[in-house]
Amino acid sequence: MAEEREVKQQSQKKVSQTYQSSAHSQSLLDGLVALRNSASLFDVTLIVEGKSIEAHRILLAASCDYFRGMFAGGLREMQEKEILLHDISYMAMCKILDFIYTSEMELNLNNVQDVLVAACQLQVIEP
Amino acid sequence: MAEEREVKQQSQKKVSQTYQSSAHSQSLLDGLVALRNSASLFDVTLIVEGKSIEAHRILLAASCDYFRGMFAGGLREMQEKEILLHDISYMAMCKILDFIYTSEMELNLNNVQDVLVAACQLQVIEP
Repeated sequence: MAEEREVKQQSQKKVSQTYQSSAHSQSLLDGLVALRNSASLFDVTLIVEGKSIEAHRILLAASCDYFRGMFAGGLREMQEKEILLHDISYMAMCKILDFIYTSEMELNLNNVQDVLVAACQLQVIEP
Repeated sequence: MAEEREVKQQSQKKVSQTYQSSAHSQSLLDGLVALRNSASLFDVTLIVEGKSIEAHRILLAASCDYFRGMFAGGLREMQEKEILLHDISYMAMCKILDFIYTSEMELNLNNVQDVLVAACQLQVIEP
């Protein structure tokens, strides 16, 4: 009887259950926005049309194939703190960063074309 | 008539619409998992029970108040590449990192208590 109980306990201990959080990805994004808003842990500066935009390198790499190739592909830019971007408007880059951090982007007829061109160039990953 | 058309066009250009992606936060997480799996852009090493675990600093800061205070609060650890963690088991830290990157964690009666203790100590943000 005691043996049977022990076997049952051992088998219970081995049974694994996967805990899954449907809210975690959004919560993580909220945490990243908070870091951005408090200018914490920025590790790369994008220079666009002569203006600076600070960001987190791994977020760019995780969201855009262009930056992934640049930062994770062994290019010289991997080590550089400042990245000069050509043929992208400052406004479009700001919109794309807003999207990366918040899942949202405000578009109108004035900016939609520039943003689309920039998103194509940066290969923004959007399922 | 031409003037009226121009006014209409100008008013159309000003109307903004917010584009929102429900899939972006999960897609970003997928990108971060890919960076983790390819050991790309790791910028911090956690030392737990004498073993090393590599990770991305801003993800720890965005997911755990403990690391946020440490990395973004001006502590000495902010600059350090290696962070020594006490009173946390290696297994529990691995499980918590799995959760941060994937929203999932495999639990059983053997590990649930250690993971809970570690999650409390690290102040894992879970809505």
